[in-house]
Amino acid sequence: MAIQKPSIPKGTRDFGPQEMAERNYIFDTIRSVFRTFGYRQIETPALENLSTLLGKYGDEGDKLLFRILNSGDAFSGVGINEYRIEGDTYNSRALSLKVSEKGLRYDLTVPFARFVVQHQNDISFPFKRFQIQPVWRADRPQKGRYREFYQCDVDVIGSRSQVNELELVQIVDRVFSLLDVRVLIKINNRKVLTGFAEICGFPDKVVDITVAIDKLDKIGLEKVKEEMLGRGLTEEAVSVIEPILSLSGTTSEKIALMRSLMNGGSVSGIVSETGLKGLDELEELFALIDAAGVSQSVEIDLSLARGLNYYTGAIFEVKALDYPIGSICGGGRYDNLTGIFGLPDVSGVGISFGADRIYDVLKGLGKFPEDLSSATRLLFAVMDRDALIYVLPVAKALRERGVSCEVYPDVSKLKKQFEYADRKGIPFLSINGSDEISAGMVNIKNLSTGAQKAIPKDDVEGILSFIL
Amino acid sequence: MAIQKPSIPKGTRDFGPQEMAERNYIFDTIRSVFRTFGYRQIETPALENLSTLLGKYGDEGDKLLFRILNSGDAFSGVGINEYRIEGDTYNSRALSLKVSEKGLRYDLTVPFARFVVQHQNDISFPFKRFQIQPVWRADRPQKGRYREFYQCDVDVIGSRSQVNELELVQIVDRVFSLLDVRVLIKINNRKVLTGFAEICGFPDKVVDITVAIDKLDKIGLEKVKEEMLGRGLTEEAVSVIEPILSLSGTTSEKIALMRSLMNGGSVSGIVSETGLKGLDELEELFALIDAAGVSQSVEIDLSLARGLNYYTGAIFEVKALDYPIGSICGGGRYDNLTGIFGLPDVSGVGISFGADRIYDVLKGLGKFPEDLSSATRLLFAVMDRDALIYVLPVAKALRERGVSCEVYPDVSKLKKQFEYADRKGIPFLSINGSDEISAGMVNIKNLSTGAQKAIPKDDVEGILSFIL
Repeated sequence: MAIQKPSIPKGTRDFGPQEMAERNYIFDTIRSVFRTFGYRQIETPALENLSTLLGKYGDEGDKLLFRILNSGDAFSGVGINEYRIEGDTYNSRALSLKVSEKGLRYDLTVPFARFVVQHQNDISFPFKRFQIQPVWRADRPQKGRYREFYQCDVDVIGSRSQVNELELVQIVDRVFSLLDVRVLIKINNRKVLTGFAEICGFPDKVVDITVAIDKLDKIGLEKVKEEMLGRGLTEEAVSVIEPILSLSGTTSEKIALMRSLMNGGSVSGIVSETGLKGLDELEELFALIDAAGVSQSVEIDLSLARGLNYYTGAIFEVKALDYPIGSICGGGRYDNLTGIFGLPDVSGVGISFGADRIYDVLKGLGKFPEDLSSATRLLFAVMDRDALIYVLPVAKALRERGVSCEVYPDVSKLKKQFEYADRKGIPFLSINGSDEISAGMVNIKNLSTGAQKAIPKDDVEGILSFIL
Repeated sequence: MAIQKPSIPKGTRDFGPQEMAERNYIFDTIRSVFRTFGYRQIETPALENLSTLLGKYGDEGDKLLFRILNSGDAFSGVGINEYRIEGDTYNSRALSLKVSEKGLRYDLTVPFARFVVQHQNDISFPFKRFQIQPVWRADRPQKGRYREFYQCDVDVIGSRSQVNELELVQIVDRVFSLLDVRVLIKINNRKVLTGFAEICGFPDKVVDITVAIDKLDKIGLEKVKEEMLGRGLTEEAVSVIEPILSLSGTTSEKIALMRSLMNGGSVSGIVSETGLKGLDELEELFALIDAAGVSQSVEIDLSLARGLNYYTGAIFEVKALDYPIGSICGGGRYDNLTGIFGLPDVSGVGISFGADRIYDVLKGLGKFPEDLSSATRLLFAVMDRDALIYVLPVAKALRERGVSCEVYPDVSKLKKQFEYADRKGIPFLSINGSDEISAGMVNIKNLSTGAQKAIPKDDVEGILSFIL
C-alpha cells in the first residue's frame, strides 16, 4: 500500500498529553463543582436519528448537520434519478434524506430533551443533570471555531423555583473561583424585555428593542434612539425606553425604577404584568444570591439577548474580566424544551460552559497549575538488570500509594534517561548502583534543586515525604 | 411540527445517572492506575479522513466504517450516473467514495498510529499513552455488541524492553485488584508459535496450528491431532507438536521443555531461532513478573491466537475467573504499527480494556460500591422561605469542603421531599423550622438508621463528621 502523509479533517484537533492535562483540569474542576450541587452525569450517543435533529436548529442548522451515509448498498433502490435536476446536478438536500438516516449530535440540548422524554418514567423530577461530550457542526472552520468540540452543559428541569437559577450562579461563581479567574456574571430576564416592549406599545418588537439596547456601549445613547426609530418604534415609544438606557445605581435601585415603569409609571402609562413577573423573578434571584453569598461580580444587564426566541425567564452570560474574549458561559430558563418530543410544560434552566474559550482564558492569563505538565513524580533510571530487578518492588509500593512513578524500560546511557525525565517534566530521579543495592537503599535526586537523599528501599513513607 | 416519539439508533445507548456513575467508577479506576505508571492521556477526533481508515481493517472492516456525507451539494458534479449498474442499482461502494471523505473512528489503534506519525517531532520516546474514547462500527447490533462503544487503550511505543510487557501485566493486575475481580492473565508469544510451525517443518501454518491448539479444551487431544492432519500437517509434524499439547508443570518447566524442543530436541530435530527468541522473551517477562510481584494469576497459554497477523511478540488475554464471559482485556506487541503512515521500525506493546464486558462482570458479581448511587450526601428540605434563606450558607460551606448537598428548590410537602431523597438515594435529610432557626442549629437525620442530631449551623466540622 502506498504510504500516506497523515492528517486530520479540517476543524478537528488532536489533543496531546499536555493539552489533555490542561483540558482535564478544566473539566475535572467543573465536574467536581456540578457534583457538590447534586447534579449527575448522563451521556447520549454521538449518533442520533436525523428525525430527532432536523428542524430543531433552524434552516441553517439543518445544513450544518453531519449526516451518516446508510450502511450497505445505500444508493440502490432509492430512485436517485428522481432527484436529478439537470445534467450532473442533483437536489442534494432531498436525496441525502434517502441515503442517510442518522446524523451526529449538533448540541447537547436537543439530545437532552429527547432523553428526558424517552426516559420520563425512570426520571425523578426535579432532574439535575450535567453532560460533557463532543458535538459536531459542518461550519466553515476558522480560528476558534471547530467542527468537533466539547460542550459542557448543566441543567435542572421540572422546577420553576429561582433556587435553580441561584444554583447555576453559585456553580459559575465556584468554578471560576477554583480556576482563579475573575468573571462578571450578567443576568437578564426575558419577561422584563417583553415588559418593556409592552409598555412601549410595541409588544412584537422585543428583539428590535433588545438589539438596539445591546449597542449602547458601542454607539451611544443618541444612535441607539435613532436605531430604534429606524426599527419602527415611535418617538413616544423611545421615550418610554429612555430611562432604562441610563439605568444606574444598585441592583435594588435598578429593579425599583424598572418596577415603577412597568407598573404604569412610564410616559405611556401602560402596565405590564409580564414585566412585573420578570422583575419579581429578578428580585427573588438577587435576594437568594445575597443570602447564599457569591464571590464573583453579578449584575443585571438588560442588553443580554442570547437565545431570545428560546428563553422564557432568566438569561445568563459570563465574561472573563481580565481577558478579552467573548462570553465563556451562557444559558437561561426555557419553558418548553421537551414539547417538541411530546412532553409539554416542563420548565428548566441551564447553563453551558465554553470549554475552548475557558481554555484560552486560562492559557492567556497563565492560570494552569505548573504541576499539570507531568503526572510522574519519580523516574527510576536503570543502569543494568540488577538495578532494574532491585527497583521494581519499590516502584510497585509507591504506585499502590497512588504515586505516579516510572521505571525506565531500557538499559541505556544515563544522559538519555536524564533527557527523558527532563522532557517529561519528571521532578525526581533515582539512580541506584551496586552500592545502593548492597546497602538496601534508594538514592533519589531532586532535579530542580539538586538535593539528593539515600532512603531505605522499604521506607515508603520516607520516600513519599521526600518526593511529594 | 408533528410530535415525534423519540428514539435512538439501533446499537447505540443512553447512559443515565446510575449507569454513568458505574461506568465512571470503572474508567476512573483504570485511568488512575494508568497514571501511576506514567501513562498520559491523549484524544483524537471522532472524524478521521477516510484515507486514514480505509484498508486498515481488511475488506470487512471497510464495510463497517460509518461514512460522513460531504457537506453542501454533495451529489452534484460527481458523475453519479457513471456508478449506475442498471436500472436503480448503483455501485454504492465506489460512489460512496465520491460523496464521502470522512469517516468515524473505528478503533483507537489506527488513529494512535496516525497521531504518532503526524506528531513524531513533538513526542519523546518511549511514548506512554492511554486513550479512552468511543468508536463506531456499522455492525449488526445484538446483545453485547454495539455500534457505538468505548475503547480504553494503553500503549507504549518506542521501546523493545520486556519491562513494558511487565508494566501492562502490572496494570491489569492492579486494575482488577482495585475492582475486586479475580482474573487470569494469559500470555503467549507470537515468536514461539512461529517456532512451533518451523520445527514442524510447516513455517506457513502458524495460524492452522494455533487454531487447532485452541480447540484442545473443547474437543480433546485426538480430535486436535485429526484437525491438524486435516489442515495439511503430516503425521510427523503432528508428533512434533504433541508434547506441547500436554504441556504441564510450572512456568519454568514449561519454558524449559519448549526450549529443548525449539533447540533441536523435537522429533524433527529442527532448530528455530525465532522460537528461541520468543522463549527468551517469555522467560524474561516471567522473571520480571516474579521480581515485581503480581497478585492475580498469570500463566502461559499457547492457544492464545488473538491478532495473530498483527502481533509480533507477546500476546495477552485476560479472563474473569468468577464470571463466564469472553476476554475482558487483550493486547500484545506489534513491530510495525506506524509503518503504514511512513514511520517504520517503531515497536510498541499495548492492551485494551473491554469496558462493556468489565461492566457486565462487576454487575454480575455485585462488585459496584454501594455509595455510587448518589453523589449527594445531604438534602436540605425546605418548608418555607425562611428555612430556605437560613440553609443556603450552610449548603455553601459544605460544598466548599467538597461535600455534595442539595437544597430542595421548591417549597412543597415534606412527603414529596422525602421521596426525592429516597429515589435519589440521599442518605441524610435536614429539616429546619423556626425552632432551629432561632437556636442557630441545623437538624439532620440519618435516613437509614433514623438517628437525628441538632448541630450548630456554623459547626461545619460537626456536620461533616455526622454525615460522612
